[in-house]
Amino acid sequence: MKDHYYAVILAGGRGERFWPLSTEKRPKQFIALAGDRTLLAQAVERLEGLIPPERILVITNKDLVGAAREACPVLPAENIIGEPAGRDTAAAVAVGAALVQARNPMGIFCVLTADHVIGDLDIFRRTLAAALARAESEEVLLTIGIQPAGPSTAYGYIEAGEAAGESGGVGFLGARRFVEKPDLETATRYCASGQFYWNSGMFIWSADVLERAFRKHRPVLAELMTRIRKAAGSGLAAAMEREYEGLDRISIDYALMEKAGNILMARGRFAWDDVGSWTAVAAYLKRDGADNAVRGQMEAVDARDNVVVSDDRLTALVGVRDLIVVQADGVTLVCSKDRAQDVKKLVAQMKQSGRFSKVL
Amino acid sequence: MKDHYYAVILAGGRGERFWPLSTEKRPKQFIALAGDRTLLAQAVERLEGLIPPERILVITNKDLVGAAREACPVLPAENIIGEPAGRDTAAAVAVGAALVQARNPMGIFCVLTADHVIGDLDIFRRTLAAALARAESEEVLLTIGIQPAGPSTAYGYIEAGEAAGESGGVGFLGARRFVEKPDLETATRYCASGQFYWNSGMFIWSADVLERAFRKHRPVLAELMTRIRKAAGSGLAAAMEREYEGLDRISIDYALMEKAGNILMARGRFAWDDVGSWTAVAAYLKRDGADNAVRGQMEAVDARDNVVVSDDRLTALVGVRDLIVVQADGVTLVCSKDRAQDVKKLVAQMKQSGRFSKVL
Repeated sequence: MKDHYYAVILAGGRGERFWPLSTEKRPKQFIALAGDRTLLAQAVERLEGLIPPERILVITNKDLVGAAREACPVLPAENIIGEPAGRDTAAAVAVGAALVQARNPMGIFCVLTADHVIGDLDIFRRTLAAALARAESEEVLLTIGIQPAGPSTAYGYIEAGEAAGESGGVGFLGARRFVEKPDLETATRYCASGQFYWNSGMFIWSADVLERAFRKHRPVLAELMTRIRKAAGSGLAAAMEREYEGLDRISIDYALMEKAGNILMARGRFAWDDVGSWTAVAAYLKRDGADNAVRGQMEAVDARDNVVVSDDRLTALVGVRDLIVVQADGVTLVCSKDRAQDVKKLVAQMKQSGRFSKVL
Repeated sequence: MKDHYYAVILAGGRGERFWPLSTEKRPKQFIALAGDRTLLAQAVERLEGLIPPERILVITNKDLVGAAREACPVLPAENIIGEPAGRDTAAAVAVGAALVQARNPMGIFCVLTADHVIGDLDIFRRTLAAALARAESEEVLLTIGIQPAGPSTAYGYIEAGEAAGESGGVGFLGARRFVEKPDLETATRYCASGQFYWNSGMFIWSADVLERAFRKHRPVLAELMTRIRKAAGSGLAAAMEREYEGLDRISIDYALMEKAGNILMARGRFAWDDVGSWTAVAAYLKRDGADNAVRGQMEAVDARDNVVVSDDRLTALVGVRDLIVVQADGVTLVCSKDRAQDVKKLVAQMKQSGRFSKVL
């Protein structure tokens, strides 16, 4: 692959939904939710043969830089960048773009997420390669839309426009609009139409093209790029401290994608899952004869359809179903499957009360 | 109280129903299921002012003698007797009777259980005192029948006969028959009749009267008494080893109470609970505003009517109800309340498979 191709992996998520396995010091991307490796390590490995480690940047919270280095020993230490504060994805993308430019003014890069699960790796790599090539030859902002596996209400959607060519077996389409997570009725309509794709949060563009787009739609981020580019190297941390102070929290979708005109969507025909809650994790665990999805030690009598992650002790179930039981770090979570989203609420409650703060 | 009054506390139970808090090495009577003290310690303390420690004998499994001494430091070490094998209650009662005789040929004693919870201690003590006095003055076998609090199917029942006097505010009745645990319909009929009482497993008699009753209805136990009496002291353990070899497993109810004619029942008007399962434990735990019965550390969002015993780590509940969650010794049990009886099944399954045998 060309040596001006880079990857910027966004690894800033908090992941309270996976408490107690994930904590403030060990968010979702730093745990092995699917398979033996952390999601972040898998995100790096996934680029093998496409982008070498020295051209992969990871952007995370500054408190998590150590954890990221540990998770990705293959990356040069300076490729892991710590943000002084969370400012959502737009700022992180701008910083990544500036650092790519500092290394190579012709740089083209993909923005990838650290906490998703991706299957069909050949197709994934072919999609990225085709998109990188396209970003090189045209003044476009590329995203990847995932062929929906069903009417999920957990994802944002992209409404596709006109067909826009094909290369390497990957189809491109215009992007008519970006929409937030819909209700079930709307999602069902979207899926039936065949015109809507899941918004994967992955983007591919040249740093230059991105900078021009920011200049037009969000000038403050173009200015950020300029100043970060100049500070790249030993002055980076101090510059980020200064710059982040005044930045608004804004997502790249909202700052740019919902406004720009020159957007293309590559059709992602690979398996993709943002693993949004404990129930989603079940897909990556072994199943016993009673459809319990289990990792670790479990003994059960008449227990069905449970999700058990029991890394640090034995979980024994009797006569229960549709529960999530997670054992980690001196804590046991027992949650009804249909309430998996409310684990966040539990964590918030504990933060507010200050009780048990040592396990957060 | 008279110095020929003794107590024999039967502490041989296994208590698999309270796994993982109870284990083979720490059965139910050795755990603090209700309050801060073990049930055995409470059984001893309950006799304060009625029978002094030097006249309280505890009969348990020989492997549990150490645990019993630890639980009851107030008792002389030689008052804790280890059976070489479980032979149900009749053998333990006979051994207790023989040891009472060896200490005092005129001995009168009550047989008490180590793993029940008793309230209204004044009434309990008054009942025992009246029964001991009656056992001294008449050739009768006394038991205590508990006024049923409801149509429980977990207890055996005693059908009362004619009124048989009163002393110290305690009423006595004849005992027409002993019946096994009934089904709900039968239990409801029993309770409605006003003639049936819960069989508490507590008995009061003179050792001599008991020996004569054994001679008539179960001669092998009268012979056991003779041989144990002679061996009392340093030869006891060896004698028990020898004697237990050939003994059948039989309960005192079946060996004697269902056959003897000279039985009286003292009416027990105190609170009594055999705490038969985790659901029964709930009555002795603190409740939060959502009717969760809790011991230890718990945090919850929308969790109702659960029983949580969390001695060794934090239990976090989200959106669950009617569960039993017990944390102990590196194990977490999650059990539906209506399946509390099946904890035994789980333990049996683990014993059979040999998996996780270290936590049994």
